[in-house]
Amino acid sequence: MDDLYYHVDGELVPADSATVSVRDRGFTYGDAVFETLRAYGGDVFRWDAHAERLADSAAALSLDHGLSDAELKRRVDETLRANDLDDAYVKLSLTRGVQPGKLTPDPDVDPTVVVQVKPLPPGGTASAPIWDDPATLQTVKTRRMPDDALPSQAKTHNYLNGILARIELRVADADEAVMLDEAGNLAEGATSNLFFVADDALCTPRLDGPVLPGITRAEVLDIARAEGIPVREGEFAPDDLRGADEAFVTNTTWEVRPVETVDGIDVGGGPVTTLLRRVYDARVERDHYDGAASDERDHYDGASAE
Amino acid sequence: MDDLYYHVDGELVPADSATVSVRDRGFTYGDAVFETLRAYGGDVFRWDAHAERLADSAAALSLDHGLSDAELKRRVDETLRANDLDDAYVKLSLTRGVQPGKLTPDPDVDPTVVVQVKPLPPGGTASAPIWDDPATLQTVKTRRMPDDALPSQAKTHNYLNGILARIELRVADADEAVMLDEAGNLAEGATSNLFFVADDALCTPRLDGPVLPGITRAEVLDIARAEGIPVREGEFAPDDLRGADEAFVTNTTWEVRPVETVDGIDVGGGPVTTLLRRVYDARVERDHYDGAASDERDHYDGASAE
Repeated sequence: MDDLYYHVDGELVPADSATVSVRDRGFTYGDAVFETLRAYGGDVFRWDAHAERLADSAAALSLDHGLSDAELKRRVDETLRANDLDDAYVKLSLTRGVQPGKLTPDPDVDPTVVVQVKPLPPGGTASAPIWDDPATLQTVKTRRMPDDALPSQAKTHNYLNGILARIELRVADADEAVMLDEAGNLAEGATSNLFFVADDALCTPRLDGPVLPGITRAEVLDIARAEGIPVREGEFAPDDLRGADEAFVTNTTWEVRPVETVDGIDVGGGPVTTLLRRVYDARVERDHYDGAASDERDHYDGASAE
Repeated sequence: MDDLYYHVDGELVPADSATVSVRDRGFTYGDAVFETLRAYGGDVFRWDAHAERLADSAAALSLDHGLSDAELKRRVDETLRANDLDDAYVKLSLTRGVQPGKLTPDPDVDPTVVVQVKPLPPGGTASAPIWDDPATLQTVKTRRMPDDALPSQAKTHNYLNGILARIELRVADADEAVMLDEAGNLAEGATSNLFFVADDALCTPRLDGPVLPGITRAEVLDIARAEGIPVREGEFAPDDLRGADEAFVTNTTWEVRPVETVDGIDVGGGPVTTLLRRVYDARVERDHYDGAASDERDHYDGASAE
């Protein structure tokens, strides 16, 4: 299929032969946590924030895996280097491993760690977005999983809720789902956080709802505050988004992606979205291409862009 | 680990080397459906009902796998025969397979089918239960996933909701969780359906709540009706179960398992539970050991009881 190497259970293996046991709880139950990471110039963006969220996810599942952040980072870096990749998508998964066949997990865990990568174009100020077009959003009937069923701060391999939302888009001409909470308020996209601009304020659903604390979400809020843009984290109705002056969605690979339409209604980007994108790119440039990471960038200069 | 053979993607393979790609959506997202089956005397109990539910699960996920019930049955039977197993636990899983790395599934599916087995003692009138003791139940804080987030009629590899419920039992001296729906009504156990006897009627949460339509549940209701026991499928409060005259839980491997206590309150089995267990065993005996299946039983007479 391709010549990539993945990291599985401590070993680098060709992607085509990267497997897990069918007895692994990651397969049997989706009993696993993960992070989607973005490498720019040979180094992972906001590793510390991702490592902290991975730890929160594991804690939410009482998954005491015993691996240090440094060890996980080492495996990610080793995978990037083995593939000569400076600019890449990285998925780091950590499962509860193989245990005797019963649902109740044993507290004693021998985790399975999987690192998958694929090449992406560079980021920063000279970058082109990795998405082809602005997002078209559609509100779906599938409701975001409530926190008392599965805590939203846990990023897990139980992803059917988002898949069902995306399947609803097949009949609509849309590429991201707007998911509501059980009360009918805006929650998030299937793989993104929602933002919009109303009354000159940047608005986004607050984290006490079933909303993943996105790393890009936090970065965008930090940029907005630094730029003096008023921020409202709150409880919002679908109509707030449909009637917004601007809207965008965020995740680690899309970064800041403007929204063209919501439920067929034109919304579009605008000056706030453009400013946030520019500053985001500038931060990536500063941290990964101009600044401290430039040595590593030279070091990995043989990276292929396949 | 053992000398079992599993069936993976059309091939029989030693269980220790039974794997799926880390790119398989069954691993990445828990994007898979399954059935837990019970083989008695060489043949699967209520195969037609399980096959129908598997089809319902796949339909709920828009997973159009293209495999006939007969082909799935063939793989199950082949696995039982390869292991010389007459009496066994069987887990049949069907994933959406490997697809390019994005959440939105491609309608064109090359499914991965996995059959895992392990030996169990025979069932029927001469059988001993496979559980050691009656169940001790504990009501947990984790709520059953609502239907509008993930339909309860779909039996999927997204099992963290039940795992979180079971983890809550670590501090209690209990072995099955009583899960409530979002409104606080009784839903089901983490891996079982709930039954209790009150005012001489057999009561169980109705299926319009987030309740899996258990095959054993349906069998028990059928037995109750045949025996003239009044049946109430309804909406019940946790106190209805705690104050019941008798209670039991059901699933394919436990069959009918009496409940000793609920939240530390003695409930226990009783005449209705005992009657239902006896008739259940008699039906297994009739269908799998005395009747039509006896030829096959002889045929597999070399079965090991390891």
